[in-house]
Amino acid sequence: MDYTKYYSGDIPSLMRSPVREIFRKVDLNAIFSFAGGYPHSSTFPVEDIRRISSEVLDKYGAKALQYGATQGVPELREVISKRYSVPVSNIQITTSSQQGIDVCTRVLIDPGDTVLCSNPTYLGALQSFKSYRANMMTISEFRERLSRGENPKAKFCYVIPDFQNPSGETMTLEQRKELVELAQKGDFIIVEDSPYRELRYSGEEVPTIYSLCPERTLHLGSFSKIFAPGFRLGWIFGPEELLDKIYVVKQSLDLCPPIFDQYIAAEFMGSGALDRNLQKSISLYRKKRDHLLSLLEKYMPEGVSWTYPEGGLFLFLTLPPHIDTVALYDKALSAGVAYVAGSFFHIDGSGKNTMRMNFSFLDIERMEEGIRILAKVLEED
Amino acid sequence: MDYTKYYSGDIPSLMRSPVREIFRKVDLNAIFSFAGGYPHSSTFPVEDIRRISSEVLDKYGAKALQYGATQGVPELREVISKRYSVPVSNIQITTSSQQGIDVCTRVLIDPGDTVLCSNPTYLGALQSFKSYRANMMTISEFRERLSRGENPKAKFCYVIPDFQNPSGETMTLEQRKELVELAQKGDFIIVEDSPYRELRYSGEEVPTIYSLCPERTLHLGSFSKIFAPGFRLGWIFGPEELLDKIYVVKQSLDLCPPIFDQYIAAEFMGSGALDRNLQKSISLYRKKRDHLLSLLEKYMPEGVSWTYPEGGLFLFLTLPPHIDTVALYDKALSAGVAYVAGSFFHIDGSGKNTMRMNFSFLDIERMEEGIRILAKVLEED
Repeated sequence: MDYTKYYSGDIPSLMRSPVREIFRKVDLNAIFSFAGGYPHSSTFPVEDIRRISSEVLDKYGAKALQYGATQGVPELREVISKRYSVPVSNIQITTSSQQGIDVCTRVLIDPGDTVLCSNPTYLGALQSFKSYRANMMTISEFRERLSRGENPKAKFCYVIPDFQNPSGETMTLEQRKELVELAQKGDFIIVEDSPYRELRYSGEEVPTIYSLCPERTLHLGSFSKIFAPGFRLGWIFGPEELLDKIYVVKQSLDLCPPIFDQYIAAEFMGSGALDRNLQKSISLYRKKRDHLLSLLEKYMPEGVSWTYPEGGLFLFLTLPPHIDTVALYDKALSAGVAYVAGSFFHIDGSGKNTMRMNFSFLDIERMEEGIRILAKVLEED
Repeated sequence: MDYTKYYSGDIPSLMRSPVREIFRKVDLNAIFSFAGGYPHSSTFPVEDIRRISSEVLDKYGAKALQYGATQGVPELREVISKRYSVPVSNIQITTSSQQGIDVCTRVLIDPGDTVLCSNPTYLGALQSFKSYRANMMTISEFRERLSRGENPKAKFCYVIPDFQNPSGETMTLEQRKELVELAQKGDFIIVEDSPYRELRYSGEEVPTIYSLCPERTLHLGSFSKIFAPGFRLGWIFGPEELLDKIYVVKQSLDLCPPIFDQYIAAEFMGSGALDRNLQKSISLYRKKRDHLLSLLEKYMPEGVSWTYPEGGLFLFLTLPPHIDTVALYDKALSAGVAYVAGSFFHIDGSGKNTMRMNFSFLDIERMEEGIRILAKVLEED
């Protein structure tokens, strides 16, 4: 039976995640993986979760297993409100921060509408934008057009200001202010995706875009990197009117976020266990980042450069122009090392000689061997 | 700031769930609630979940907290495969069966495409169809048009064959076969929503539509009524080609379903705990259904009729034509009793003198008082 005729018009625009396709085929633990954005398994608070799971069942009983409010359980919204100094009425809990991206796009985008973003940017966001048949434009192109006296239109701008995925770079306060100004001039919303913000290893914290311009910003937060991605919980801060539309869409998406998980996350965050665990993660990842940087210095052939991330999970490599990291991928994988080709993060197919490297997942003891193999693959190309 | 200009074209079509709006404002435990589709809290296996949560952390450790496969964890797909005799490759785990409805609609529907359904039908499904700007048509209208020699088009037909929400009615084998025939003639897909199927209190099981016509059917299952709705887990059985599109859309929706929850559900279902718990639920709900039926018999004024459900959570009342259950709702709530007005489940605004009654949520000891109050409100109208 041919199903093509039944499909909606969105289907031909769908983009498969190359990262998820890698994970479908390869046992990550059997290779040296710099692909993916997986936290290191030692950062997961297994014993806290065991204890808190039981406490939640004591405290809430059947309530932890019943349906709950679409906005999220009050207890979780309250601890998030306290931690980030945002009123409860401006907080929507999401079933993963990926859902946050999806639901913001759904509320704002019709086919052909323009989304602004950096180039490169997070590919899960590109997947979502493409699935709604959005038109993609770089922020700099929009800025140029505006300054040329043209009247470019965009519905929203998607940015990851802290330790960007994939580049690892952080926007300065000046750059954030300029973006807010551009949003006011160009009349668009800013979707600030901020899953890595609390994973800072050096440098000074920069205010969120949301704090600079709350009336124009939807700020996405996530438990995935500060707690456990297996809980699929995130949040959105935003203007109440926009959150109200997101709320109604979310009713039809999944009624409400997982309840048991929300109570566990609330207890974990509210009791201080999250902060203790975060200190451990930061100290581990700082070591891993520094180690990766020194290994790149030691092993990478001439003509390879990379970014210096102040936090997060990634850095970005630029290789000599003749190297195509998509073409090279199978060879690297056969040699035992995985990365994500940089072109997947680009909206225009550029970045062929770039790659994203994750430094959170692979054990620190195994990083040197992985980089040695990768350097050899690059040298032979 | 006026946000209207930023919204996508879907937003004006959004329908708020009147059920979720009720829950937003009212403490369900403080009134006699026949609204909602909440399981009774005594059916939640709190102690099993406590034990299994801990076992899952022993057995899988960090793996239970990490990202996982978009299709769902293999362990859960396998126990579902075994229980329902469906190959693993035809199973996609969803983050709630509401997400199942949403993702099927997204894959199949463009604005203006037709969805067939019964009238009345589940309002969460109507919310999803309307949010994609689908055109709604009853199955019987489609059938008539076809038999008149017209060439009506529909992308899919949405049905709840077992203990329908809201009517409580079950399709006979003959009716299921006729629907499959209609789907073949009319060339549409069938979305079979089956959250209540295992809650049968009397009568004989009827084969699923999926079993009659797997190549044309997307079958939606749910853990909400047989385990706990707070876990937000469901599944889809379907043809591999359709599931592949659903899989790619799901990547951009939320990457993967909650992992810890999936392992708990897999253990609960695979170990036999689910079947033991289900027997308890069935025996409780059978008593509650029979009690409600006898109370309606005893208290309802003349001119009121109702359906006799062989399972599930609902029955449907038809009142004298002069009664408008939407208009009556505030009065009923002030008197202490909640229901859902039947017109919300209708695609054409009809059903003004109908209401859905849920018999799972309210304690059996409190049902008589609730029905006495409701009868009085109806008599005074």
